[in-house]
Amino acid sequence: MKEIKTIEFKEDILYLIDQRKLPISYQIFECRTYKDVDFAIKDMVVRGAPAIGAAAAYGVVLAAKEFSNDNKEEFLFNMNEALELLNKSRPTAVNLMWAIKRMKKLIAENKDSAVKDIYKKIKKEADLILIEDIQTNKKMGQIGNEIVGNKSTILTHCNTGALATAGFGTALGVVREAFYSGKDIFVYADETRPRLQGGRLTAWELVQEGIPAKLIADNAAATLIRDGKIDLILVGADRIALNGDTANKIGTFMLSVLAKEYNVPFYIVAPTTTIDFDIETGNQIDIEERDSKEVTYIENIRIAPEGIEVYNPAFDVTPNENITGIITERGIVKPPFKENILKLK
Amino acid sequence: MKEIKTIEFKEDILYLIDQRKLPISYQIFECRTYKDVDFAIKDMVVRGAPAIGAAAAYGVVLAAKEFSNDNKEEFLFNMNEALELLNKSRPTAVNLMWAIKRMKKLIAENKDSAVKDIYKKIKKEADLILIEDIQTNKKMGQIGNEIVGNKSTILTHCNTGALATAGFGTALGVVREAFYSGKDIFVYADETRPRLQGGRLTAWELVQEGIPAKLIADNAAATLIRDGKIDLILVGADRIALNGDTANKIGTFMLSVLAKEYNVPFYIVAPTTTIDFDIETGNQIDIEERDSKEVTYIENIRIAPEGIEVYNPAFDVTPNENITGIITERGIVKPPFKENILKLK
Repeated sequence: MKEIKTIEFKEDILYLIDQRKLPISYQIFECRTYKDVDFAIKDMVVRGAPAIGAAAAYGVVLAAKEFSNDNKEEFLFNMNEALELLNKSRPTAVNLMWAIKRMKKLIAENKDSAVKDIYKKIKKEADLILIEDIQTNKKMGQIGNEIVGNKSTILTHCNTGALATAGFGTALGVVREAFYSGKDIFVYADETRPRLQGGRLTAWELVQEGIPAKLIADNAAATLIRDGKIDLILVGADRIALNGDTANKIGTFMLSVLAKEYNVPFYIVAPTTTIDFDIETGNQIDIEERDSKEVTYIENIRIAPEGIEVYNPAFDVTPNENITGIITERGIVKPPFKENILKLK
Repeated sequence: MKEIKTIEFKEDILYLIDQRKLPISYQIFECRTYKDVDFAIKDMVVRGAPAIGAAAAYGVVLAAKEFSNDNKEEFLFNMNEALELLNKSRPTAVNLMWAIKRMKKLIAENKDSAVKDIYKKIKKEADLILIEDIQTNKKMGQIGNEIVGNKSTILTHCNTGALATAGFGTALGVVREAFYSGKDIFVYADETRPRLQGGRLTAWELVQEGIPAKLIADNAAATLIRDGKIDLILVGADRIALNGDTANKIGTFMLSVLAKEYNVPFYIVAPTTTIDFDIETGNQIDIEERDSKEVTYIENIRIAPEGIEVYNPAFDVTPNENITGIITERGIVKPPFKENILKLK
């Protein structure tokens, strides 16, 4: 298995694989301040709900380092500003808010300690978040692999691999586990317009691993599903409501409707950190609308005329009734979702 | 209304708007031989079922000109070769085969005339095909406009406008007619990966005409449909079977499933020349698979990793049960489709 170091922290620098540049070039983006991390999340140098959470945690570490010579009062004030900024870097993925909340709690619990000690605890906590995420993904991979039959053809959307997480991946982690456990699988990867995470990132991971696969335009998925060419659809999640409604990359909902219509199992693969226990349904999820240039340009090439307006939502919400199950590190959640999700609280 | 001369024939040269270059630059592609026309159709300089039909007709004119100094026997032999080549330039759109068949019949009927007279008749027939197509489109626009309510929001896929036809358009012709008849309409245009005919061409036509519109990634259509933001879906067709099953640009079938699920009227807009009376169902339609580079490159920029395989079907088939009606120049065909389509034979 190829090791892909999406997020690495060494000697006060956060190193991120620059996902805006893949697959054309492999470049490392260095964050030396929490504002660099804020930029990296906003501009999608790093993306994928769990990866954003882990990157934000290291953003907090960089802030704590920056303010480590402040007196306690200044430190707590400045940390609060930094936490608020990072918390707002993107609105939909709940893992970001989860990581920030965890850091806030840690700081509150240690507010009487010396600044340098708080810094050390923050650093340790970020390392833990990173390690936990990889462990969680490997566990989800094992659990998810149970529903992958030999000779399965799996459809994926967006990137849910090592690049979307601290390592290994969520939905693509299940694919990895199935492949390395010796199953003969085949993957169709949606390219996932507008940001092309499927074409740029998932395809790159699949090629790296040597997993048999074909890339398709998102428009080609429907025919494959209808014609019985897809045995299983595995997608990630950016936020899951209490009732199981799931926000994920734009296009996921469309796949779920097709899956239901043509009886193809449709699974969400996400750590329990992606569950937002504070919201009842998907209606309460804030859907980020991104820059029109994501649709009208590829790199610096204009692919739509001057003067055309654009509607560019980054996510959509799949209603729980279209979801077969949610694969988490603590087992597969099946309907009734609300009842079973509450058990994970 | 802006005049868009997709196809123009003057002094033995066929002038085509080079649709590979739009919307970045407006260039005219000149065809001086039927082999140039064959290339232009294959490489999608000209595309859209009715436009392909008209361009092919002028390809026959150029062949007839080229062979006009041959003796009769040579002329008929060479014309047969040219007709066969043009007939195979693309496999799915039936208007191409229809135009070639019409020319074959004309040649057969006039095989005893002098070569120069046959040439003149071929030229006249091509002009007629071009004029008829525009007239047909305007008629479909008027008929289709009857089902467009005021303040409608219409979803379109691919390009079905002046650029897809000899002029005015099929599905986008209905949009044009609705707009110019004074209705307050709004258009969401699917960008239509992989070739981006929606983003490149439909958006260009909409901007030219000043029709209020937004461009979306194909993945964004599903949420708009579910959320009641779309009143009507209008698409074109490349081939319609006797039972109403319709081959159209990849992604159309996906929209039809969503339309059915969320009760949005879904209409095909196509001239009766798009009906293939020789096939019973959509299963008999040959679906063109195109070069993987359409998915892995934008212009000369690679957007997917080296080594990834691609599945790139250019069309899909929408089953008749997902279609509300077929708007033709002879009226709107409703279910039962087979019975009503046979009346148009």
